[in-house]
Amino acid sequence: MSHYIRADGRFAGRDIISVRHLSPEDLEYIFRVSHDMRMLVGRIGSFDLCRGKILANLFYEPSTRTSASFVAAMERLGGSVIGINEVHYSSVAKGESLPDTVRTLECYADVLVLRHPEVGAAAEAAKWCKKPVINAGDGVGEHPTQALLDLFTILEELGGVSGLTVTLLGDLRNGRTVHSLARLLAGYNVRLQLVSPPSLAMPAELLSELDAAGVVVETVARIEDAIPHSDVVYATRVQKERFAQLADYEAVKDAFCITPETMQKAKKKMVLLHPLPRVNEIAVEVDDDPRAAYFRQIEYGLYVRMALLAMVLGRA
Amino acid sequence: MSHYIRADGRFAGRDIISVRHLSPEDLEYIFRVSHDMRMLVGRIGSFDLCRGKILANLFYEPSTRTSASFVAAMERLGGSVIGINEVHYSSVAKGESLPDTVRTLECYADVLVLRHPEVGAAAEAAKWCKKPVINAGDGVGEHPTQALLDLFTILEELGGVSGLTVTLLGDLRNGRTVHSLARLLAGYNVRLQLVSPPSLAMPAELLSELDAAGVVVETVARIEDAIPHSDVVYATRVQKERFAQLADYEAVKDAFCITPETMQKAKKKMVLLHPLPRVNEIAVEVDDDPRAAYFRQIEYGLYVRMALLAMVLGRA
Amino acid sequence: MSHYIRADGRFAGRDIISVRHLSPEDLEYIFRVSHDMRMLVGRIGSFDLCRGKILANLFYEPSTRTSASFVAAMERLGGSVIGINEVHYSSVAKGESLPDTVRTLECYADVLVLRHPEVGAAAEAAKWCKKPVINAGDGVGEHPTQALLDLFTILEELGGVSGLTVTLLGDLRNGRTVHSLARLLAGYNVRLQLVSPPSLAMPAELLSELDAAGVVVETVARIEDAIPHSDVVYATRVQKERFAQLADYEAVKDAFCITPETMQKAKKKMVLLHPLPRVNEIAVEVDDDPRAAYFRQIEYGLYVRMALLAMVLGRA
Repeated sequence: MSHYIRADGRFAGRDIISVRHLSPEDLEYIFRVSHDMRMLVGRIGSFDLCRGKILANLFYEPSTRTSASFVAAMERLGGSVIGINEVHYSSVAKGESLPDTVRTLECYADVLVLRHPEVGAAAEAAKWCKKPVINAGDGVGEHPTQALLDLFTILEELGGVSGLTVTLLGDLRNGRTVHSLARLLAGYNVRLQLVSPPSLAMPAELLSELDAAGVVVETVARIEDAIPHSDVVYATRVQKERFAQLADYEAVKDAFCITPETMQKAKKKMVLLHPLPRVNEIAVEVDDDPRAAYFRQIEYGLYVRMALLAMVLGRA
Repeated sequence: MSHYIRADGRFAGRDIISVRHLSPEDLEYIFRVSHDMRMLVGRIGSFDLCRGKILANLFYEPSTRTSASFVAAMERLGGSVIGINEVHYSSVAKGESLPDTVRTLECYADVLVLRHPEVGAAAEAAKWCKKPVINAGDGVGEHPTQALLDLFTILEELGGVSGLTVTLLGDLRNGRTVHSLARLLAGYNVRLQLVSPPSLAMPAELLSELDAAGVVVETVARIEDAIPHSDVVYATRVQKERFAQLADYEAVKDAFCITPETMQKAKKKMVLLHPLPRVNEIAVEVDDDPRAAYFRQIEYGLYVRMALLAMVLGRA
Repeated sequence: MSHYIRADGRFAGRDIISVRHLSPEDLEYIFRVSHDMRMLVGRIGSFDLCRGKILANLFYEPSTRTSASFVAAMERLGGSVIGINEVHYSSVAKGESLPDTVRTLECYADVLVLRHPEVGAAAEAAKWCKKPVINAGDGVGEHPTQALLDLFTILEELGGVSGLTVTLLGDLRNGRTVHSLARLLAGYNVRLQLVSPPSLAMPAELLSELDAAGVVVETVARIEDAIPHSDVVYATRVQKERFAQLADYEAVKDAFCITPETMQKAKKKMVLLHPLPRVNEIAVEVDDDPRAAYFRQIEYGLYVRMALLAMVLGRA
């Protein structure tokens, strides 16, 4: 296994729109470079791999966490950022089309990161943009860098993913994060446990997709029953707004919360993940548990985004 | 003709408030440096001509495009930016005067770029500021960097401006962009064709000014009749809000739109410009026409703003 | 007295939450490094003392002046900034707790600057954050970097603070700035004159604190009577909103304004300070008086913030 980045160039100029476009070899390469980024940041903090390069960070909807992560990633690579966080203020409000905005920003920047509320926006942007485009979430569509950082976290924390039992917990119907992660995991030899309120169960199409990929999927009613077998628990938010009746929400919300008591039933070596922000899905008392990996997960996200930026810019 | 920038220093510390302050020699110098910037960006992307310098990018009204252009320009010169895009959030909302804001920012930054809704704001700011001020648009007043980039685009695309026929199209009454460009063009040997709805014709004062400068100006009713003779067509937005009756707008709007059919009547060698954002003044089908230069125009804007920043900072 | 920064490391990793945590030796060190920063900026503008370091500039309420000052400070040290100025747009709006936000940002950045509307927020943030936290104002609590820059201004302008008569003018009840400064001054041998509307007098607790520290405090009704003895006048805003009746405000407002006539009664060598923004507490005609130091004060603020950033990052 190689250490420290050698520019390979295979991703130079490529767009990162969907995890579906990534082959097993692509994934292996991304995680290798991400690992190197982790080592380099650990030793020297920042470095000039992308010095002189400019990122246009275009957010049509707010996402401080993802936006800040890309800014930090670019800055730790020695590059600069044009931040466009308030698109309601911009030409967009005057009615400019996404293709025109993209063709403007490609004149200024070397790479474009896009968060947009509409499914397919990133693919549309990439169609028009001569510079590489990275999808930072397009509505209920994809959020590939989140899925990649989730998987990278599992790899770095547990040393591998093959043979693991992964429990997906919470709102499995609406969470694009958990859908993308499930698709990525389907490429590995994993067993999935699904724990959600019945009204927020995983969509049938995705279940078929997982079945076709040969993934063993089990539905478990309560987290207490799922956690003893789990190597990974991936918790997501159960949002009040998703329920027609507040009473329905109140009835289920505690059944899908992780507490210190829940963690007592878990394996000694396992990881608890969450895409954050959390509200009350994971009790703050769990934070000090060494298996609680959700803040380390944020840090892994920095490394994955550094890797992707450097790769599409032809520097890794 | 020199290539690659030698610091001349003649602009060091100067403000860029209006195109009226620029002599023919100034213009020649600005475009020479802008051309050098184009060559340098083409070869090496970014460089450290203004390393360690800080731009305060102060926008009292939103303008993503212009703001992003100055940010990119400063970053490609190796400098840094303090972005102040939401002045409604700032001390300004507490009632601070422009002179006080300017005298604060000059303590932090080496150069100030100002967009303000009031005519004369940039000149007022420059009066108080010890550091150079660049006007990025002051209400219906001036937007000198836009006019300079428009002219630079013509120069780079067609190799010169003397002897050309330039058609100005759309809202010629309200567009500060087109007014500044007309004034700049008056210094060269050009013929102007004006095409606009009668209610949005060019102001009489500006027409007198052009006449006094010896410019041949012709009013043409329809773009179809103007385009065959044009070396340059500069299209601008005809905004619905400018019409008292929506019916009046609907009646004229298509008469001032450029379509592939319009372009068939144009010279083989000509350029079609637009300050962007466009709404429907130029059909998207025209975008692939090699004469459609409005996205290249954005890129030329980057070079002109790099040149001006480096010049007023004494680095070019 | 040493010149030019030698990293001493005593502040590496420390939080700057309150002036109460700073010993006389700490203050001396801070002002020594701030002075060195002033010299270095004067000679070379920017330098790479904190190259590769990233500041997360987290503002839960708007403060263009303070925010821009920290951005400029970090950039002049060669570092980079993640600006988070619109927290209403961020995960915070989704209900994320301050500890979670802080533990996210520490994954991206090397130092955190926090402005927050609630007293104690900075201390709370520091409790959770592994990276150093600098308090940029927490409600009516503390604003330590403002107090430090106020004192640094006096030191640099007058060469020392011992033996001086300092007049605090305006709203002495609500101004956290003036409270923090008074506390800092209590560590030196100064005489204080307080001039305020009766309803906006300094809180009794703070008066007791000053008394316990052995500070001679005199209340003076009118600025005219206080100014002849003053080495320093620190003026603050008397905000209309603080008065129950507009008439009460109108009755007192002019009594607490500094005009050229007021300045005629002042010593030849004295300094007039104001935390800015001002509205009408100091007439603009006073600005040209060499004793009017409030714009120089902004510049001193840059040096103090550069010093603090470099110090907590272990670089000075």
